[in-house]
Amino acid sequence: MLNTYYYEQLTAEKIDELVQRNTDPNSAIQDTVLEVIQEVKKHGDQALKDFTKQFDKVELDKLYLDKDDIAALAQTISREQMRALEIAFQNIHKFHQSQLKRERTVETMPGVKCWREVRPIEKVGLYIPGGSAVLPSTLLMLGVPARIAGCKEIVVCSPPQNQGKINGFVAYCLQLLQIDRIYLIGGAQAVAAMAYGTSTIPKVNKIFGPGNQFVTKAKSLIQGLTDVSIDMPAGPSEVLVIADETARPDYVAADLLAQAEHGIDSQAILVSTNVLITEKVLQEIQRQLELLPRRELAEQAIQNSYAVITRDLEEAIAFSNLYAPEHLIIESDQWKSLIPRIVNAGSVFLGHLTPESAGDYASGTNHTLPTSGYAKSYSGVSVDSFIKKITFQHITEEGLQYIGSTVETLAELEGLQAHKQAMSIRMT
Amino acid sequence: MLNTYYYEQLTAEKIDELVQRNTDPNSAIQDTVLEVIQEVKKHGDQALKDFTKQFDKVELDKLYLDKDDIAALAQTISREQMRALEIAFQNIHKFHQSQLKRERTVETMPGVKCWREVRPIEKVGLYIPGGSAVLPSTLLMLGVPARIAGCKEIVVCSPPQNQGKINGFVAYCLQLLQIDRIYLIGGAQAVAAMAYGTSTIPKVNKIFGPGNQFVTKAKSLIQGLTDVSIDMPAGPSEVLVIADETARPDYVAADLLAQAEHGIDSQAILVSTNVLITEKVLQEIQRQLELLPRRELAEQAIQNSYAVITRDLEEAIAFSNLYAPEHLIIESDQWKSLIPRIVNAGSVFLGHLTPESAGDYASGTNHTLPTSGYAKSYSGVSVDSFIKKITFQHITEEGLQYIGSTVETLAELEGLQAHKQAMSIRMT
Repeated sequence: MLNTYYYEQLTAEKIDELVQRNTDPNSAIQDTVLEVIQEVKKHGDQALKDFTKQFDKVELDKLYLDKDDIAALAQTISREQMRALEIAFQNIHKFHQSQLKRERTVETMPGVKCWREVRPIEKVGLYIPGGSAVLPSTLLMLGVPARIAGCKEIVVCSPPQNQGKINGFVAYCLQLLQIDRIYLIGGAQAVAAMAYGTSTIPKVNKIFGPGNQFVTKAKSLIQGLTDVSIDMPAGPSEVLVIADETARPDYVAADLLAQAEHGIDSQAILVSTNVLITEKVLQEIQRQLELLPRRELAEQAIQNSYAVITRDLEEAIAFSNLYAPEHLIIESDQWKSLIPRIVNAGSVFLGHLTPESAGDYASGTNHTLPTSGYAKSYSGVSVDSFIKKITFQHITEEGLQYIGSTVETLAELEGLQAHKQAMSIRMT
Repeated sequence: MLNTYYYEQLTAEKIDELVQRNTDPNSAIQDTVLEVIQEVKKHGDQALKDFTKQFDKVELDKLYLDKDDIAALAQTISREQMRALEIAFQNIHKFHQSQLKRERTVETMPGVKCWREVRPIEKVGLYIPGGSAVLPSTLLMLGVPARIAGCKEIVVCSPPQNQGKINGFVAYCLQLLQIDRIYLIGGAQAVAAMAYGTSTIPKVNKIFGPGNQFVTKAKSLIQGLTDVSIDMPAGPSEVLVIADETARPDYVAADLLAQAEHGIDSQAILVSTNVLITEKVLQEIQRQLELLPRRELAEQAIQNSYAVITRDLEEAIAFSNLYAPEHLIIESDQWKSLIPRIVNAGSVFLGHLTPESAGDYASGTNHTLPTSGYAKSYSGVSVDSFIKKITFQHITEEGLQYIGSTVETLAELEGLQAHKQAMSIRMT
């Protein structure tokens, strides 16, 4: 069922085709989403209520839940579940905390000092998808770095669950993050609300989070329509597993299926140096599929996927770098020596005992990652995503002696006389 | 000539209006640019030759200059000019070199190790504008961090000057950067060529650089059409000068005019705590304007600009943070104590002896900065812009003992059975 290719037989064109994701711009959706955006811009809260009724089948009196509502819902989950969410919170916090650092001042010439300082993005919007799986883990993955960065206002939007509520897991995560309010708005309308602001929902500077194709399209559109920026373009989730003869076929199959159960457009790519292992993985996939509740989704996603047989690990990494996977799992005893060759990937899982699901939830790394080949130029979400670095410089009289004539000469040669004058006037 | 407002008299709506930039989406330009992009995508090099003939009035036999051509052109500039470009190169290098650091590994639980590693974006495209002022400084500001990051392929495009050449300053900067080729293509067609690739021009992963409204529109469009990313959205350049009673009106006027000479859509905002200083600055602007060769441009830009009188420096900084200027100059003896309050700005120039032109050319900081209020969520270009950070994780058997059940519980509560299974299968 998994199409299998031999790397050495692939032409450059075929490789190009294999590493391409189906990034359909889909202008039918574009028109719908644009209309939603315009409505929210024009009619604010009323448009949000109307769309929530239309799309989520919920009539909202109030667009949000506050501290007390959240506290009540959080109490509905078990002690064990609370504990698991706390451990995830702590690990994510520990890893992300290490990303924030002060930079040193550089004196580029005597009396010319330059440095950068970190400032949080003041207002951020976090979109937490509802739908086929509710993802409290996404709230932790976005909320923890936002808190560490020191963002002043954290606006959280998520589509309402059963009759204008949210689930208890999301509520408990809000408590862990000390976020006192959640807006019960989903879809493109949530993105529009955070981009333009309404009487109830604050306008933000940057919008984060995954979502369905409507949310994704809305994020990419508001990027052009407003001064609001976004974390990254998002597409369907994907994994690429590199497995050599030391790999356990049952582990590899489990990892491919974990990706496949996300949705029918997920891709789960196997790259193996070993034909026998590949065959065993395919058998294991069949066997494990039988046991999955989300079997139908996973089966269809597997149809979109394929296996590539390479002659050695070097070729396997070469193919992976061309594909630039969101998640890369290296199931080989030689994982250590392969690290320096990995150029394009979102997050990498090393060795036989590091499944992607560890990073999806609790190892500490972020699970909001570049898909669709964007790992070639984007990093995953981190504290970096919630800050700006402002450059500062200060020049003394001594500094002017050193740098002045250089600036004058360069302004002159670029034909910018007033630039030159701004320096000259200080040198007399 | 400069409209003057009193901050205490401004309503919230009026402040909103003042800090707004005229970010006209301009769909007339959009259609032209889309057509250029489609033509380049379809006809490659031939389209580039045709557009260069049409827009730049140059017939190109060859789309680029190579090492020998560059060397010959670089020899046409003076020793003094070479020296100034070298000093700028060195200072920019020194400051940007300090931005690249290794990160430490975090053991979030015993046996669960997480870390990030830096990888260069492999292929980057640098757009160097021609037109009313040729800017070799921009080549240094983009080329130096690209080199420090370790980008494998650096593609440089710039519109051809006099009969298919480039100017000697740009040529000399190419030599300093050890870049052996420059493509003589400008405008939207250059952006399209780097986004799709042609037989001559390589496809890149990310495109950098300022440009006119066609270039800017092309960058924002290819971001949606392809998997290529861009440095940031770009608008007209701008400065905000905060001047208190300790400011020298002639310095302040020179700084405002240096911004104004960029183009008629530039903004040069004065925020002062002192009416007398403001009046003197306005007089000085009149006086210094007389002496400028680009006087007409500067005069029109000044019409787009305004002054705000505040009661104290606190109000001045508050207004500046709402405006989020690309360049912020603080001409006050109290510059040091104001630093922590600066939240939104691209690059900041501190004290009376630090003109913006120092940072435009040679202090070491980057001059590719967020305009139009984007400083609320974007940083200027730095080495960070040319790299990705990939997260890695490795779990041992001990680590599985610590993290396993947490991952199982979380996968279970999100209803993702295959995610759970990928962990459980390793725990038996």
